[in-house]
Amino acid sequence: MNDTTSFDGLLLGAHLVTLDGADYGVIEDGALGWTDGVLTFVGPRASLPADAESLAGEVIETDGGWVTPALVDCHTHVVFAGDRAHEFELRLQGASYEEIARAGGGILSTVRAVRAASEDELHAESMPRAAALLRDGVATLEIKSGYGLDFDNERKMLRVARRIGETLGITVRTTFLGAHALPPEFSGRADDYIDAVIDWLPRLHAEGLVDAVDAFCEGIGFTPAQTRRVFETARALDLPVKLHADQLSDLGGAALAAEFGGLSADHVEYTNDDAVRAMAESGTVAVLLPGAFHCLRETKLPPLAAFRAHGVPMAVATDCNPGTAPVLSLREAMSLACTHFRLTPEEALRGATEHAARALGLHDRGVLRVGLRADLALWNIRRPAELCYWLGGDLSRGVWSAGERR
Amino acid sequence: MNDTTSFDGLLLGAHLVTLDGADYGVIEDGALGWTDGVLTFVGPRASLPADAESLAGEVIETDGGWVTPALVDCHTHVVFAGDRAHEFELRLQGASYEEIARAGGGILSTVRAVRAASEDELHAESMPRAAALLRDGVATLEIKSGYGLDFDNERKMLRVARRIGETLGITVRTTFLGAHALPPEFSGRADDYIDAVIDWLPRLHAEGLVDAVDAFCEGIGFTPAQTRRVFETARALDLPVKLHADQLSDLGGAALAAEFGGLSADHVEYTNDDAVRAMAESGTVAVLLPGAFHCLRETKLPPLAAFRAHGVPMAVATDCNPGTAPVLSLREAMSLACTHFRLTPEEALRGATEHAARALGLHDRGVLRVGLRADLALWNIRRPAELCYWLGGDLSRGVWSAGERR
Ligand SMILES: [Zn+2]
Ligand SMILES: [Zn+2]
Repeated sequence: MNDTTSFDGLLLGAHLVTLDGADYGVIEDGALGWTDGVLTFVGPRASLPADAESLAGEVIETDGGWVTPALVDCHTHVVFAGDRAHEFELRLQGASYEEIARAGGGILSTVRAVRAASEDELHAESMPRAAALLRDGVATLEIKSGYGLDFDNERKMLRVARRIGETLGITVRTTFLGAHALPPEFSGRADDYIDAVIDWLPRLHAEGLVDAVDAFCEGIGFTPAQTRRVFETARALDLPVKLHADQLSDLGGAALAAEFGGLSADHVEYTNDDAVRAMAESGTVAVLLPGAFHCLRETKLPPLAAFRAHGVPMAVATDCNPGTAPVLSLREAMSLACTHFRLTPEEALRGATEHAARALGLHDRGVLRVGLRADLALWNIRRPAELCYWLGGDLSRGVWSAGERR
Repeated sequence: MNDTTSFDGLLLGAHLVTLDGADYGVIEDGALGWTDGVLTFVGPRASLPADAESLAGEVIETDGGWVTPALVDCHTHVVFAGDRAHEFELRLQGASYEEIARAGGGILSTVRAVRAASEDELHAESMPRAAALLRDGVATLEIKSGYGLDFDNERKMLRVARRIGETLGITVRTTFLGAHALPPEFSGRADDYIDAVIDWLPRLHAEGLVDAVDAFCEGIGFTPAQTRRVFETARALDLPVKLHADQLSDLGGAALAAEFGGLSADHVEYTNDDAVRAMAESGTVAVLLPGAFHCLRETKLPPLAAFRAHGVPMAVATDCNPGTAPVLSLREAMSLACTHFRLTPEEALRGATEHAARALGLHDRGVLRVGLRADLALWNIRRPAELCYWLGGDLSRGVWSAGERR
């Protein structure tokens, strides 16, 4: 298993949270070695061959701290333009939704700003958010489209998402969310808009811009029937699906995602027991988004006991978006998952690593194990639970993506 | 008012949130000049004399962003040793309070760790927390004792607090909180312990270690009668008082603080209307601590409408402590104040600047005005509300204390 002949990198002096197995999988005073971006040694430092250090390309002496798998943020909308802080303020000043709409608020204000921005401007505006997530431990980032709502602007968003991955040197997985909201030019014609979405998807996919397909299935979004049409198009293209499901009501979204073998059903506050069983059978991950729950002051908890009982993997993500979850740290979402949803810190950490990777269809990361990617986060902490315990602060000492420091 | 003859420093290119007056007090494309650490120009850049830049010692061109008064964190327990993340984890794993106590949890575990630490160790452990607060905008930091609970260890904590101020080059205000909890050696003898606290206070004050005096007045803390004895000793020494009041029940703590002309009553969830009126008359600030409210999942809101109606200034602080509020960012507390308490972003910002300064008896900061300290925070934002809107992230571009960059 452990091949020490030629480490490109060797990290020493930290404790490891491997998550390999049923618990934290702690290795005290551990060592991590990698070659060509892949872990080739995971174990106690004492088990390293005597010549390992002298043969390694780079030796990183951490002098303490903990290493976890680099975090995976599996649900974000970080690519957008403009801001909605003004709307947040109006709401706290007591403005009604009508007044906010009149003041130009709501998702369509983000759509207008995204459409007005050039690709370079959109990249420049979105980069600090992605960089903030990276700075707090994230080396794999899902980014959705869904503020363009026409072919050119959805394409622009997905291109910017790809470019962010290149700029930061981390993995970005793109998700086409054309069915996010109804653009004004299709007002009253949702089915026609779904026709358009179904038309764009293969063209965007042909450009290599789509890793997965998502929709917003909700009373204020699209119906299950409309969602199904999008999913059928995805299936024909062999693209995996995921779904904004059952956030505000139970429309059967999670069950629909499961029916299509979906990677994940996200939000899932109102998901019922039958749907949970279906998710378990299809291997669909439940992506918990406690940031939106917190900011919207929701009270309906996801069916956590049912997820646990049926063995549905639970992921945790920021949902970073300008309207309902302005969250720039995945640790923050992990903390909120513990406080609001009573996840254990271990569940939250696994939810932001192994299970989040699975929600993106990635099986090469999220655990520290020989043969998986050298995606690492080094933390200034004394025990793993601190990653969920502190609100704010500067705990990250470095993030590596495939063995490269970012 | 504006004297431009000899600026030591001149900051240009940002918008200003002066908070001078009833609202944000925005000055677009503003300029700030200072001399000997005191603001000598606050106004539009266009109003600067033509020779201002050439005469200034240092010119800071911000190229955008916003400047607010540097933040003031008026209630913290950042000096401590050990950590309580394990206890947080046990609780989420379903452990009872008894089990946590048996596992060595609770405030007394922090007391043990503080007593066991040398002054240097305590400084080294506490510094990263204070530095994190500074990095997110704080240039004035209140630090309480209260984990030593004997003369030498309370003294050690207060000395470390002073030293943190020197190390970071920011203002630290110390608060003696000997009456925080009953140490084991006084078990069953709370009145005797108060005798000891009253004995230590003048000695610590004689060493210049005490700027204010606090107590934990609560069913699980000390009685109003015991608190009164501490306050009488403070009054005899001409030291201002503040109080952990009415957090879990209404013992009349805020009214007691008001009776002694207290700087602040803190927590104040259960404060009644009469006490609010008494606070208004005595000029006692209501310090809101939404981090503890959040982490303890409290539901009883402070009497916010009454504070507003009676003109009681509301401050917002982190309460940074290992047991109930592991909060390392004052922005985080501001955001929680908006989400949980429905403060407006302007109230939260004033609560973390002008009103927080007042809760420390400081009238020379918290507003950008000629004659006040050049305590500044420069932010990467497009409107002031963003300071309360984002959770996490890296918005601060610099903090100045008395004109010196920190
Ligand atoms: Zn979303
Ligand atoms: Zn406190």
